[in-house]
Parts: sequence; structure tokens; C-alpha cells
Amino acid sequence: MVQLHDDERLDYLFAEGDMQIIQSPTVFSFSLDAVLLAHFTYVPIKKGAILDLCTGNGVIPLILSRRTNAHITGVEIQSKLIDMARRSVEINMLKEQLTMVHGDLKEMRPILGHSSFDVVTCNPPYFRTPSKQEYNQNEFLTIARHEVYCTLEDVVKACKLHVRPGGKVAMVHRPGRLIDIITLFRSYNLEPKRMQFVYPKKGREANILLIEALRDGKADLKILPPIYIYNDDNTYTKEAEVIINGR
Amino acid sequence: MVQLHDDERLDYLFAEGDMQIIQSPTVFSFSLDAVLLAHFTYVPIKKGAILDLCTGNGVIPLILSRRTNAHITGVEIQSKLIDMARRSVEINMLKEQLTMVHGDLKEMRPILGHSSFDVVTCNPPYFRTPSKQEYNQNEFLTIARHEVYCTLEDVVKACKLHVRPGGKVAMVHRPGRLIDIITLFRSYNLEPKRMQFVYPKKGREANILLIEALRDGKADLKILPPIYIYNDDNTYTKEAEVIINGR
Repeated sequence: MVQLHDDERLDYLFAEGDMQIIQSPTVFSFSLDAVLLAHFTYVPIKKGAILDLCTGNGVIPLILSRRTNAHITGVEIQSKLIDMARRSVEINMLKEQLTMVHGDLKEMRPILGHSSFDVVTCNPPYFRTPSKQEYNQNEFLTIARHEVYCTLEDVVKACKLHVRPGGKVAMVHRPGRLIDIITLFRSYNLEPKRMQFVYPKKGREANILLIEALRDGKADLKILPPIYIYNDDNTYTKEAEVIINGR
Repeated sequence: MVQLHDDERLDYLFAEGDMQIIQSPTVFSFSLDAVLLAHFTYVPIKKGAILDLCTGNGVIPLILSRRTNAHITGVEIQSKLIDMARRSVEINMLKEQLTMVHGDLKEMRPILGHSSFDVVTCNPPYFRTPSKQEYNQNEFLTIARHEVYCTLEDVVKACKLHVRPGGKVAMVHRPGRLIDIITLFRSYNLEPKRMQFVYPKKGREANILLIEALRDGKADLKILPPIYIYNDDNTYTKEAEVIINGR
């Protein structure tokens, strides 16, 4: 029997209630961004290997396990989070398919080798180094959201190291960092091939960026149709419903 | 009295019929892309100087003249096109505000100096070097559409040369070249600040990219709401109507 600690909760991952995930409002709860990335990314269906960096409570591997039989490895630097992820794997009886590794994404080469994954996904910290005050308020959330333990370049470098030639790297981030992301991707021979922008509502600026690159790919980018999250009356749009509820 | 040559026509530029432009189906007709760029770009309203590279028949300067009192200079390498542009300027009685320069954008420094424009706009040739067959079929259209006389890098370099520090560069292009554009912009210290994607219809991939950069700007990009051109029944959307008809 899997135990819940402190203020942890067991939430349903989809409306159907066939998957559950351990969350905690003070330590880590998954975001819409992670769900969007898991929906956006290409996955090999029948076999292969997928790596999810900055996996947090393992939300992306858990969601992806519904779409693929490939083995999925999650990497997370915070021990409280990887512990949550491991217990969620157990609850969902996915120990055969999902492996959760505790450690620093900058130091995974001895453990994961190099160029061994077909797909690498990442929902990295979005914000630059936090103020001391932010850090002191909530260490767990600050590490998850800010570039405390890894910069954007560290993340891109790790994606490049672990993806096989011709493999795919998919990331979710804020549009404000797009130019940095593209410049870094190119400098590590990750050629962006698909991008999609997510808008909170019609008439608003995009607030989420989804990007997929091909290692050693040729220049040619597709911009997918936009995704809107809310209708004018603040209910979810149909497409957001499908992504969030998994149907 | 301004004369029309060969197969030229005099078209209305907007539904209101207050502006006219000389076009020719075999030499050059302006595209939706140019109209979108003229609508997208920032312009100083009361005074200042704007430069339009690859101006063709002068469509962008003509449209912009409705929005600004700034002086607008167009540069075009094809003599037939600059001749059309000059006669359109005359027809619309805009000789005071619009100057059409015949020449190669790579060699404009002796004529236009450097860093002298508040805004530089450009609707450059989209396609790489054409085949000999394409070139022979229609020289005028091939030069306007293919990188015959200037590469994307030549264009970005000229934008950088002529825009003042803190000034803006606005370009329309195909999404497929976005990564090249962003990489080149950054290498010439043109920091993209606003992007907008144009989709032919709902559910389709974007086919036009609008991008505005700030010379020497800091990294921070906004993705504006998407523009759709057609409704499902192939009529223009309301927003496209407003852009195309100027009201």
C-alpha cells in the first residue's frame, strides 16, 4: 500500500479516473503546461525509449504511458518530488514501463549514457535566478520554477546529449524566451520543426510555447494551429477539454 | 497625366477608392503579405523616417502613407517596378512624402547613409535561388520571389545598417524560414519583440509570419493573437476584411 505524506493528495490524472498522481500544493502540483507538452510531443507507439527531464512528480511520463509502450525515464533533482513520482508509478502499476531517476540533469551521462533516447521531453524552470526572498518563501516551488539548479542552456545541452541522432526534443516554455530557446537549440544542432502557441483566450497574446526539434534536422518549421484554453465565458474550450481530460 | 504601359492596370488600394496603385499581372502585383506587413508594423505618426526595402511597386509605402506623416523611402532593384512605384506616387499626389529609389539594397549606404531610419520594413523574396527554367519563364516575378539578387542575410544586414539604434525592423516571411530569420536577426543585434502568425483558416498551419525586432533590444518576445484570413465558407474573416480594405 502506497503511503501519502504531509499535505499530499491523490488526484485523478484524467476525467476517466483510470490514472492517479500524487500532488502537494506546497511541494509540487503539475501544471497545464506539462499536460500540453505531453499532448504535443511525438512519441513512438510500440517500442523505444523516452526521457523526461525536470520530471517533477512524474506527470509527463504518467500521461505518456497512455499513448506509448516505449520505456520512459524521468529525471528530477528534488528528492521529495522523485519520491512522489515513484509512488505514483507504483499506484498506477507502471513499474515495468516507467523509471524515475533522482539526480542532476547535468550529470546523467554515467547513468543514462548518451544519444540513447528517441524522444526527450522537458518542462524546465521558466524563470531566471530567484531573489533570496522568493527562495526562502518556498524552496521546493522556487527550484521547480526558477533556474536555481539548471539554466536553459544546461537543459538544452542535456537534451542534445541524450537524444539519438534523428531523435526529437520537445519542450514547453514561455513565448518571452523563444528567441533564446531557438538560438540555443540551433547551437546544439537541434533544429526546430514544429511549434505551437497556446493562447488563454481569443484576442490575447500567447502565454505558452510548445516546440519540437529534430537532432541534426534540416531547417523547415511548421507552425501548428493555435490552441485556446478558455472561452469568453471562462469555461474550457472543447480542444482544452480534450487535452486536459484525455478525451 | 500619368501613363500606363503594356499590360498595366490601375487598381484601387482600398475599398474606399481614395488610393490607387499601378499593377501588372506579368511584372508585379502586390500580395496579401505586403498588406499584412503594412498593417502589422509600428510607425511613428507625426514625423520621422521609414525605409521599405524590396518595395516592388511601392505598395507598403503607399499604404503606410495613410497612417503616418513620416517620410517614407522605398528601394527596389527592378527598374520596371520602381517606375511603376514612382507613377503611383504621382497619381496619389504623394511626392512630398514618398521617395522611390532605384538600386540594390546592398549598395544603399552612399545614398541613404547609415542608422538614419526609425523603422525599416521589408517583404523580401521568400524562396532560395530559382532553377534556370523558373528564371526564364518570367524574369520579373522570379526576381521578386527568389533570392536572385539578395539573400536573407543581405536583407537583414541592410535592415541593421539603415535602422537607427532603438529603431524597429519589421518583416513578413514564411514560417518555414523563421529559425533562419531569428538566428540572423540576433547575429545583427536585431532582437525580435513582436511576432504574429497568419493562418489561412482555422485548423490549418500558419502560412505567413510577421516579425518586428528592436535594434539593440533586450530579449522579450510577445506572440500576438493569430490572424485568420478565410472563414470555413472561403469568405474573408472580419479581421482580414479590415486589413485588406483598410476599414
